[in-house]
Amino acid sequence: MASTRPDGRRPDELRPVRILTGVQKDPAGSVQIELGQTKVLCAASISDGVPGWMKGKGRGWLTAEYAMLPGAVPNRGARAPGGRGTEIQRLIGRALRAAVDLAALGERTLTLDCDVLQADAGTRVASITGGWLAARLAFDRLVHDHQLARTPLTRQLVAISCALVDGQAVLDPCYDEDHRAQVDANFVLDDQGRLVEVQATAEGQPFERAQLDAMLELAAQGARRLLEAQQAALAAVQPQK
Amino acid sequence: MASTRPDGRRPDELRPVRILTGVQKDPAGSVQIELGQTKVLCAASISDGVPGWMKGKGRGWLTAEYAMLPGAVPNRGARAPGGRGTEIQRLIGRALRAAVDLAALGERTLTLDCDVLQADAGTRVASITGGWLAARLAFDRLVHDHQLARTPLTRQLVAISCALVDGQAVLDPCYDEDHRAQVDANFVLDDQGRLVEVQATAEGQPFERAQLDAMLELAAQGARRLLEAQQAALAAVQPQK
Amino acid sequence: MASTRPDGRRPDELRPVRILTGVQKDPAGSVQIELGQTKVLCAASISDGVPGWMKGKGRGWLTAEYAMLPGAVPNRGARAPGGRGTEIQRLIGRALRAAVDLAALGERTLTLDCDVLQADAGTRVASITGGWLAARLAFDRLVHDHQLARTPLTRQLVAISCALVDGQAVLDPCYDEDHRAQVDANFVLDDQGRLVEVQATAEGQPFERAQLDAMLELAAQGARRLLEAQQAALAAVQPQK
Amino acid sequence: MASTRPDGRRPDELRPVRILTGVQKDPAGSVQIELGQTKVLCAASISDGVPGWMKGKGRGWLTAEYAMLPGAVPNRGARAPGGRGTEIQRLIGRALRAAVDLAALGERTLTLDCDVLQADAGTRVASITGGWLAARLAFDRLVHDHQLARTPLTRQLVAISCALVDGQAVLDPCYDEDHRAQVDANFVLDDQGRLVEVQATAEGQPFERAQLDAMLELAAQGARRLLEAQQAALAAVQPQK
Amino acid sequence: MASTRPDGRRPDELRPVRILTGVQKDPAGSVQIELGQTKVLCAASISDGVPGWMKGKGRGWLTAEYAMLPGAVPNRGARAPGGRGTEIQRLIGRALRAAVDLAALGERTLTLDCDVLQADAGTRVASITGGWLAARLAFDRLVHDHQLARTPLTRQLVAISCALVDGQAVLDPCYDEDHRAQVDANFVLDDQGRLVEVQATAEGQPFERAQLDAMLELAAQGARRLLEAQQAALAAVQPQK
Amino acid sequence: MASTRPDGRRPDELRPVRILTGVQKDPAGSVQIELGQTKVLCAASISDGVPGWMKGKGRGWLTAEYAMLPGAVPNRGARAPGGRGTEIQRLIGRALRAAVDLAALGERTLTLDCDVLQADAGTRVASITGGWLAARLAFDRLVHDHQLARTPLTRQLVAISCALVDGQAVLDPCYDEDHRAQVDANFVLDDQGRLVEVQATAEGQPFERAQLDAMLELAAQGARRLLEAQQAALAAVQPQK
Repeated sequence: MASTRPDGRRPDELRPVRILTGVQKDPAGSVQIELGQTKVLCAASISDGVPGWMKGKGRGWLTAEYAMLPGAVPNRGARAPGGRGTEIQRLIGRALRAAVDLAALGERTLTLDCDVLQADAGTRVASITGGWLAARLAFDRLVHDHQLARTPLTRQLVAISCALVDGQAVLDPCYDEDHRAQVDANFVLDDQGRLVEVQATAEGQPFERAQLDAMLELAAQGARRLLEAQQAALAAVQPQK
Repeated sequence: MASTRPDGRRPDELRPVRILTGVQKDPAGSVQIELGQTKVLCAASISDGVPGWMKGKGRGWLTAEYAMLPGAVPNRGARAPGGRGTEIQRLIGRALRAAVDLAALGERTLTLDCDVLQADAGTRVASITGGWLAARLAFDRLVHDHQLARTPLTRQLVAISCALVDGQAVLDPCYDEDHRAQVDANFVLDDQGRLVEVQATAEGQPFERAQLDAMLELAAQGARRLLEAQQAALAAVQPQK
Repeated sequence: MASTRPDGRRPDELRPVRILTGVQKDPAGSVQIELGQTKVLCAASISDGVPGWMKGKGRGWLTAEYAMLPGAVPNRGARAPGGRGTEIQRLIGRALRAAVDLAALGERTLTLDCDVLQADAGTRVASITGGWLAARLAFDRLVHDHQLARTPLTRQLVAISCALVDGQAVLDPCYDEDHRAQVDANFVLDDQGRLVEVQATAEGQPFERAQLDAMLELAAQGARRLLEAQQAALAAVQPQK
Repeated sequence: MASTRPDGRRPDELRPVRILTGVQKDPAGSVQIELGQTKVLCAASISDGVPGWMKGKGRGWLTAEYAMLPGAVPNRGARAPGGRGTEIQRLIGRALRAAVDLAALGERTLTLDCDVLQADAGTRVASITGGWLAARLAFDRLVHDHQLARTPLTRQLVAISCALVDGQAVLDPCYDEDHRAQVDANFVLDDQGRLVEVQATAEGQPFERAQLDAMLELAAQGARRLLEAQQAALAAVQPQK
Repeated sequence: MASTRPDGRRPDELRPVRILTGVQKDPAGSVQIELGQTKVLCAASISDGVPGWMKGKGRGWLTAEYAMLPGAVPNRGARAPGGRGTEIQRLIGRALRAAVDLAALGERTLTLDCDVLQADAGTRVASITGGWLAARLAFDRLVHDHQLARTPLTRQLVAISCALVDGQAVLDPCYDEDHRAQVDANFVLDDQGRLVEVQATAEGQPFERAQLDAMLELAAQGARRLLEAQQAALAAVQPQK
Repeated sequence: MASTRPDGRRPDELRPVRILTGVQKDPAGSVQIELGQTKVLCAASISDGVPGWMKGKGRGWLTAEYAMLPGAVPNRGARAPGGRGTEIQRLIGRALRAAVDLAALGERTLTLDCDVLQADAGTRVASITGGWLAARLAFDRLVHDHQLARTPLTRQLVAISCALVDGQAVLDPCYDEDHRAQVDANFVLDDQGRLVEVQATAEGQPFERAQLDAMLELAAQGARRLLEAQQAALAAVQPQK
């Protein structure tokens, strides 16, 4: 069957993925991830101490901030994040905490800044996939600097979007598809194919269990390719001396 | 098998559900919903006009605000809602908009206030289930007052939580279960058993597809009983003269 | 003389008073007070420590927060309290501090949350009358739990409104009277009939000393009945074991 | 009997009153009032239009802002007004609106800025007494400029404090008295000796009706002298050509 | 050549300068400075401690706040300072810190409040010139009270504006000149004629080096007269006993 | 003489300059400028209408926002811009307005967003130099789209920093120099070598006129090279069809 996707992709095909490391010199972990035209800069910074409500428990914390540059969207977006940004940064932080042993981190905080340079759908999943790599690099630096004996990372993690467009489940929708989708879904998966977060939302018509299942299948396929892209980017990092 | 739930329920058993209408005299639709010890006051108010970005399209809007009274939780909660409240009120609004024909509403706004009087897990799903009924009553009043020819409500909607506790899927967890759950999940379903929103989050360990499926099954069962409770509360409303 | 009050009351007659305790399970003291259609939920919470400017003096503090649910008034009220709310919560806190020996409380803070569920005039005086009882219950719990040797409460306190309507002084005006009153007055009195706070405001025409005196007389009568209602509610509280 | 007041005044004696007009060149009415060491700058500005909630009724509005310069108090005060400032500016606005025919003002707003240059007790009553004069001058300018046919001012108004110190009622307490007073009271009176606002607050011990009466007597005396001081300041204003 | 300045001054002539000390009783240093119709109240307060980011270094801090009373300008100005106020108070603080040995001050903070009572151009330079004197008086009090062995002031400082109006450089422009100037410039100079801050801004057409030089010459002349005015005000201060 | 600059540059040598266009697809003008390690993304967006206080005059407006990504500096910077950011964005907006005929722009607003991706001194001057080019591209698009008959740009503009380090004037200081400079200076110049803005600030010791002159000379040299770099970047832009 000929593809009907606006950019000619198959239903189960990701947009081109590009992952750069070391884009900013100051953060402990710095990653730029691109999913097609979507570009997100992920910076992982580690500081001593934890928020007040966590003090004295010997455990660390991981939190995320998500923002868009005004020029990342048509018609200049506002800088103030608003409710959508709050929801997204809570998702990013929650997802990545599921990959970290906070007790092993000790009373330190990893702050992950996800700044969208260009938005074309999928910014939250790109933030999680790129953010995992930034966190990995930051933890590696702690180990390299003998501040930690071993990395507190417990698993590899990626995130991917699916949508139901014109009745068909598609992987990694671009803006044009996202805009007219009946259902938007985001999935966070680990390197064993297990689920960390499932979010599916009807935009208009409710959906059937079978449609949710179809999107879960696509997500599992896409996740494998993103896990490989993370590993390839890691392999390309210049080892620290 | 003997139940291991703290309050002696079966895994597929809801807490006692109680729905009162007309609790506040001023809102167009007023509902108090109780799921066990959780109590939420839902008030639906209708005003002319829509937010600025929607003006001139002849369509209406539905938005929700969610807050907790400080005394609703142990150790006095803060009034400022914060990120969790923002996330919840976005979910409530999004879910209920899926049950409303905004074009049929015309340039009016339904604001749904969900104020938690007492919190014992499940406040967001109680807000949606009670909120749907408050919206129904408010729209009925518009029809009764000849402001609308027919209700803009397109379907009946409920929401329900599930959790994975000690490896077992349970319906409608209370606070003690919610607190130590491996997975928290919230589902919004319509009167045909179709899905409007699916949210499942690993708290610690990732989960398998089969575990998600078990929770989806429980949710479908619980939804049927909540749909009946909404209908019973509606039947008890004194018809307006 | 036939009454001219909208609800048929005599000029010196209170609306029906109803006081419930233990409405919320978490606060140390929980009271719902109703004056006619006005309903306020009063929650007294006690925490260790005092605000920064009071530290190290060995004295406690009592502060109040006052808010209205949006559905408590016609046309949906805003959540942000604004100047009126600030003025009212300062009055509540000031009045109740006059009934507490802050040195005997030690470095603890009692926070009194007064949340108006339904507003029909008199919300601030209901908050003080209900708030005194919530504070009483919270202090009793501290004594019961052996955290304090004796209650820091020094006196019983109630508050009541009066108004000048069509030239006549009336006790406890309802919304319809309040709305067209020439003078609004609020009084806080103790169990000896002494004054803790007097506030009288001309809405339009100034008023004479004799008119202030007439309202002071009515307030003294109403106060006695409210003091009895507080005692009756206290007597009904299940003793803690 | 020899006075026991810290500055040697009789119980019924005001501090020296000084009223200057035209202190700032830009406001329509500009007054600096001094009660002993207390100094307040009152500026009345008139603008076209009224706040949104009043539009289209053909009526005007009068609102007040009250602030202290940081250097007006010992230990540098904060600029943010806080609850106390909110309460005071509401009192100032409410009191002065009782002296204005808002319908005669038309859809205009008089904003009265009361900025305390030096605080030594009595800043709120000085603001009302000085503010009335600033409003009078501003309205006179509107009449002089043929924007209004007659002044919308309906009466002359002053405000004065009293206190109960060591069991004795005193007029116009200075800071040292105010600080250790058992009762603080503020009164707003018109040129007929009638009451516009009565506020009396127990600081510690409740008070008797007789003590309130004694303060009301002193206030009536002090008001007469302040009414004269306003008239003298008016008489000294250079007539506008 | 006949002057073309609106108030008849020569191009190199300051407006009348008036400096009063001790205007407010509470601040450690209190100065009112007037440049023609511009009037600024400068209050220097000293407190123990420094901002968090400076703690533990044994050094002090000097910071400034700049605000305008609403009645200081035509058409009532807003109280919120906004970007312009932020820029000005940063300039004031930065300039005065260049005259203070922060190590000699110890961990204390001097807060300089500059409140504009009346604005007619030149408020920021008046704030610096008056602020230096207020700081001098405050430091003198610390020395007098044996809290410091010697003043931490390292030099005398003044500030002055120039403008390019109709192609001619003028000193100390008034509002009418400032309003139609091609270039606005502000200079901070010390008692050796050296520069502490230079700011020149084209309003419309760019300017030549020669025009900047002409303004620098005028500023050097004006600075000498302001340094004398500061000294004269100091000489008039009643010595503290 | 051998250079003593940390990166081996001559005193009058700029860091490598790199200017990219079209970095973001949505803004009308998009430029990334790099001065050594400093990288700033400049996005010029044009919208219809002007701020409220400018309406109805037929003139346009240009405003700037300046922000740093948290990862642009060591130790993760805060997102909230604070006073420094306010001061910088006011400078950027003021400087670029000096190059635009606002009447020729009509009632449109150009918003220039300057987001610092990596900071190593000179971010404000890079923002102005890059911002001019972004504005040029945005205006060219308006002309190309027949919305304007000709560009409202009136001149070419660049900005450059100088510093006094160890007694020597240097051009375009890097972070290490900036940090220990005695004087920081920023200059905005046009293509005729005329001045648009001069800012020089003593960090510690005041400076002499001759030192200001030396920095002005260096700035004039550096400006010529930046003007060429802007032209080269313009020449490389793909002509729009």
